[in-house]
Amino acid sequence: MTAVVYRGARDLAVVDRAPEPPGPGQLRIAVAYTGICGTDLHIFHGDMDARVGASAVIGHEMSGRIAAVGAGVSGWTVGQPVTVMPTRRCGRCAACRGGNSHICHAMDFLGIDSPGAMQSSWTVPADLVLALPDDLPLDHAALVEPVAVAVHDVRRGRVAAGEQVVVVGGGPVGVLVSVVARAAGARVLLVEPDAFRRSVAQRIGIEAHDPGTTDVVALVEERTGGAGADVAFEVSGSAAGVGTAVDVLTTRGRLVMVAIHPQPRPVNLHRFFWRELELLGARLYQRGDVTEAIRLVAAGVVPAEELISRVLPVAGVTDAFTALEGGGGVMKVLLDWREGAG
Amino acid sequence: MTAVVYRGARDLAVVDRAPEPPGPGQLRIAVAYTGICGTDLHIFHGDMDARVGASAVIGHEMSGRIAAVGAGVSGWTVGQPVTVMPTRRCGRCAACRGGNSHICHAMDFLGIDSPGAMQSSWTVPADLVLALPDDLPLDHAALVEPVAVAVHDVRRGRVAAGEQVVVVGGGPVGVLVSVVARAAGARVLLVEPDAFRRSVAQRIGIEAHDPGTTDVVALVEERTGGAGADVAFEVSGSAAGVGTAVDVLTTRGRLVMVAIHPQPRPVNLHRFFWRELELLGARLYQRGDVTEAIRLVAAGVVPAEELISRVLPVAGVTDAFTALEGGGGVMKVLLDWREGAG
Repeated sequence: MTAVVYRGARDLAVVDRAPEPPGPGQLRIAVAYTGICGTDLHIFHGDMDARVGASAVIGHEMSGRIAAVGAGVSGWTVGQPVTVMPTRRCGRCAACRGGNSHICHAMDFLGIDSPGAMQSSWTVPADLVLALPDDLPLDHAALVEPVAVAVHDVRRGRVAAGEQVVVVGGGPVGVLVSVVARAAGARVLLVEPDAFRRSVAQRIGIEAHDPGTTDVVALVEERTGGAGADVAFEVSGSAAGVGTAVDVLTTRGRLVMVAIHPQPRPVNLHRFFWRELELLGARLYQRGDVTEAIRLVAAGVVPAEELISRVLPVAGVTDAFTALEGGGGVMKVLLDWREGAG
Repeated sequence: MTAVVYRGARDLAVVDRAPEPPGPGQLRIAVAYTGICGTDLHIFHGDMDARVGASAVIGHEMSGRIAAVGAGVSGWTVGQPVTVMPTRRCGRCAACRGGNSHICHAMDFLGIDSPGAMQSSWTVPADLVLALPDDLPLDHAALVEPVAVAVHDVRRGRVAAGEQVVVVGGGPVGVLVSVVARAAGARVLLVEPDAFRRSVAQRIGIEAHDPGTTDVVALVEERTGGAGADVAFEVSGSAAGVGTAVDVLTTRGRLVMVAIHPQPRPVNLHRFFWRELELLGARLYQRGDVTEAIRLVAAGVVPAEELISRVLPVAGVTDAFTALEGGGGVMKVLLDWREGAG
């Protein structure tokens, strides 16, 4: 079987390996499609070498079909379409003990801490596998994991029908947060400097504005009778994005912190005090978020065709990463692992 | 009657004025005691001249007795002990329309925007007056307003019995937050650099630590089996306090922003993301917070005797402000307005 392994910064190799037969409690999956996420890009840049070992198989956004069933595993049939929730909790840390195992402190994240999805045959614990509807195209299904992130974010923000939502940052997660918030009945306004990303958003009916040319705070005030937005999502990772997300909020508005900010950011805490704002960190997803994501993708609520910019053969993996790190011109890029695909 | 008027920075004068008879819908109160709060100190320093007019009567923490009842007001008898909730909402702004009139954007705050409590005879709208129990000493009752702040803060933090709470900052509000959180069943740890403030806290049974000599984060970890605190209150107003309040929190821990931070502070947003923390701004109080504060003071849950450092005659008002701005050596200072008191 084929696998993409990380050999060091900017060095991915497509290698041939023997498939791993499923042990007790495991399932072997014939991978169909994998997506490439911002975390994969961080790995590609060498920023996560402390966690990602040499010759590691990366990737955690995927779809596929059951290829083999390990001992003691029931309820699965070969050929059945599936996806994988790539997070294994430790069950012992403070987060797990406190009922927050989805952000376990000692998490085994498949594709970072242990072998990931970028291999044509992936053997995983059966309890991480989720069934997909038979009629859900498998390329679309490769979006389930990032959609689950968006579902979790929107749930954290308690987005309700009729609310005004502002999403700051229009990469794949920002666009998916916009889509999921809209599906929850919110009025959504996306803020994104990149013209291509705005064009993707606009094509799927998400109103998108360039913060370089639009006074976003004034626009949101105008839309809300001077009140401000009910919920803002900070998905840009930029200091300016934090400022915008705080400034657009109404009294008791909620700011969901989705992006990773490697360094401390100046935050207008006086406004948090004055308007009794809320800041809510949001990371990953719970199993219910993944099942909801499957439902949203299968129902066509997530416009998968518009969000998948390219599907490349596995041999083109480095091209795929290079296209993504440019930022502009692509939204979601998939690798096609199906037999005979490459 | 006697009144304290603000004439400019560091210039308070005790003047004689004619008492204002209560108009329709108003009550005239014979003020018994007034407290001095951090906001009064800001006014004293000239920092709020944009809101506080020349010759304004300041003050908003008080107790007293009904002296006269205006036309159309019922349910009150002369001599009845009362306190005043000093916030008048506009009823039209976005906060009021959104059900958050307690932090109305156009609030009339008595003692800042209109005449306050530092006068022996105070005429106020009847709907801002709350009855006090007959057996509640009126000096204790002057603490109701800051206790209501603490009640609101603890409610915003959703403090539950058995939770570990860390209060950063041990001035009057920090100590009252500690007391109210303890009354809610929490284990409370107060962080305060000033030795006198720590001694007051310790005298009322609140464990208090000097952040200069105690590794607070390590101590909280030790107390919580490595998990961290469930709720932190930032009451210090300092950048270091923000850092401590973030660092002590467990996964999904809540940080209540009580203090005023005039400038943006660097905040570790990555930790908010990673641990799914919450930041909750908290300002002022709702009417239910004030009635709960009355109950807590009347029940002796708030150790008023220990928190009232000094009671001075009105003629000593400048001494009272000067003692407070030193910070050390006093907790709460009251002025005694009762007839013949000064």
